[in-house]
Amino acid sequence: MELINKMLKGDKRACARLISIVENDEKESEKLIKKIYRFTGKAHIVGITGPPGAGKSTLTDKYVKLLRKSDYKVGVIAVDPTSPYTGGAILGDRIRMNDLALDPGVFIRSMGTRGYLGGLAKATRNAVKILDAYGCDYIIIETVGVGQSEVDIVKAADTVVLVMVPGLGDDIQSIKAGIMEIGDLFVVNKSDLFGAQRTATEINMMLDMSPKTDRRPPVVMVTANQNKNIEQMELEIQKHYHYLVDNGLLEERRKKNIKRELLELVEEELKKLVIRETENNGELDSMTESLFNKETDPFTLRDTLLSRIK
Amino acid sequence: MELINKMLKGDKRACARLISIVENDEKESEKLIKKIYRFTGKAHIVGITGPPGAGKSTLTDKYVKLLRKSDYKVGVIAVDPTSPYTGGAILGDRIRMNDLALDPGVFIRSMGTRGYLGGLAKATRNAVKILDAYGCDYIIIETVGVGQSEVDIVKAADTVVLVMVPGLGDDIQSIKAGIMEIGDLFVVNKSDLFGAQRTATEINMMLDMSPKTDRRPPVVMVTANQNKNIEQMELEIQKHYHYLVDNGLLEERRKKNIKRELLELVEEELKKLVIRETENNGELDSMTESLFNKETDPFTLRDTLLSRIK
Repeated sequence: MELINKMLKGDKRACARLISIVENDEKESEKLIKKIYRFTGKAHIVGITGPPGAGKSTLTDKYVKLLRKSDYKVGVIAVDPTSPYTGGAILGDRIRMNDLALDPGVFIRSMGTRGYLGGLAKATRNAVKILDAYGCDYIIIETVGVGQSEVDIVKAADTVVLVMVPGLGDDIQSIKAGIMEIGDLFVVNKSDLFGAQRTATEINMMLDMSPKTDRRPPVVMVTANQNKNIEQMELEIQKHYHYLVDNGLLEERRKKNIKRELLELVEEELKKLVIRETENNGELDSMTESLFNKETDPFTLRDTLLSRIK
Repeated sequence: MELINKMLKGDKRACARLISIVENDEKESEKLIKKIYRFTGKAHIVGITGPPGAGKSTLTDKYVKLLRKSDYKVGVIAVDPTSPYTGGAILGDRIRMNDLALDPGVFIRSMGTRGYLGGLAKATRNAVKILDAYGCDYIIIETVGVGQSEVDIVKAADTVVLVMVPGLGDDIQSIKAGIMEIGDLFVVNKSDLFGAQRTATEINMMLDMSPKTDRRPPVVMVTANQNKNIEQMELEIQKHYHYLVDNGLLEERRKKNIKRELLELVEEELKKLVIRETENNGELDSMTESLFNKETDPFTLRDTLLSRIK
């Protein structure tokens, strides 16, 4: 494809169009990824996640600006919840990081959580591959980290930054706990607010209770909207990357992700197969009917279907 | 099973032990569900969901107490995020709704979001079936509704109540939007707080923008911790149920859920099959290796695996 060559040579518009392909066209997306896969694996992929209201966009904005000072090429994928009412990303490219978007060394794309045939995780993964082949030194995936699917998305990163803020209440506490284990680095944002030190202490306490590992994730206090301490965060992200490389863990981590991706691709196809096998001949409908009437149970019918497919 | 007979006769402890089985033992769980499936389908299943901090537990508590005044038998499944650090549900049965738990007409169970072999959605679904066979008139599934998996859980309900609160900031706004379409009923909780009316107006505006349907979801203002207007909410929940029944939509909705459950069960088995087929002989590892070395691409290997399985 002409677009691929252009993108590989650093054409930003070509890159944007290729990402639109992985968002909208599954068939073309496969062809595309097949062609560019060998150009991937060079970028440092950083996941930035945390509860709603943690100030992740602002933090990402300042972090990208800092990286730009060292002339790194940076890609940002912001995963935003979308609504069928708006038909697209709410916090779209339009309204965020406008000045960054004009920088030729930065590529920003917002992706919603709905409307991807193959799933958002897949679309995000493929967009990351394009940005990688495009030559980004850093690729930042920013997500609201609360649900399982969001957690799955950031897991694909080399370094996961968990952003917390003081004063989000008890309910948030429990969510924090649920995603604690994926953080390679903890950031307490809005650290000028009352309770910031307490939040840091709580994170440290949780880390103390966690099983001992070779590396204890650092906790960094920042105030993103005042551009305070972003350098410290960047330093810790770099340190984590070197820690991975020096201990052979980057390879291990990436292989784990590769394996998961492959299995998910196979599962996805099998899923389609099941639907094709049962939906066309009305079998699925008649099975549903007999389940609704309690004439049988779902496990029995599952086994019937399985024996037919195999 | 002796336990099943006891549960069907209304033995609360037997019911609790059966739910533990669906949480912990997949094999036994299947046998169990096969036996009780025909006793299900009678309860009105109500999902209560919303962002962290919306006061869902308090609302559920008051709602259950109201239902108890009419002597309804009520089951509650609270889906709580868990942490590997605590090893279980944080907002466990111990610390919530203690007085309710003593009521023989109420069954409460907290379920975490980790550690279910077959997935939390499946465990929840099966727990609901047990409570249904146990004879509950109402089964309430309470979840933090932010991520996709949480949304999937409440989708299994007959009536979904979306709980909002004033003043959760912009980030929450976008999450709200992402789950707006699953609400059959909107509740603005903490309606004594500043901004409650504005939140209600925003919800109404979103509903105005949505595609026209036969039924427009009502918006109810409540203040759960003051027990205010819970009757109004209960009335709207009942009205929604009657709306479903009167228009043949309850059957339609339940069949949709039944179909999805069946497909998911089949997919789950196929998933296991893929792993079994590839992991044992080291094939998966060597494929991962060649992907890591960029000798091939994931889609090509997916097709290799698929042709081998079929």
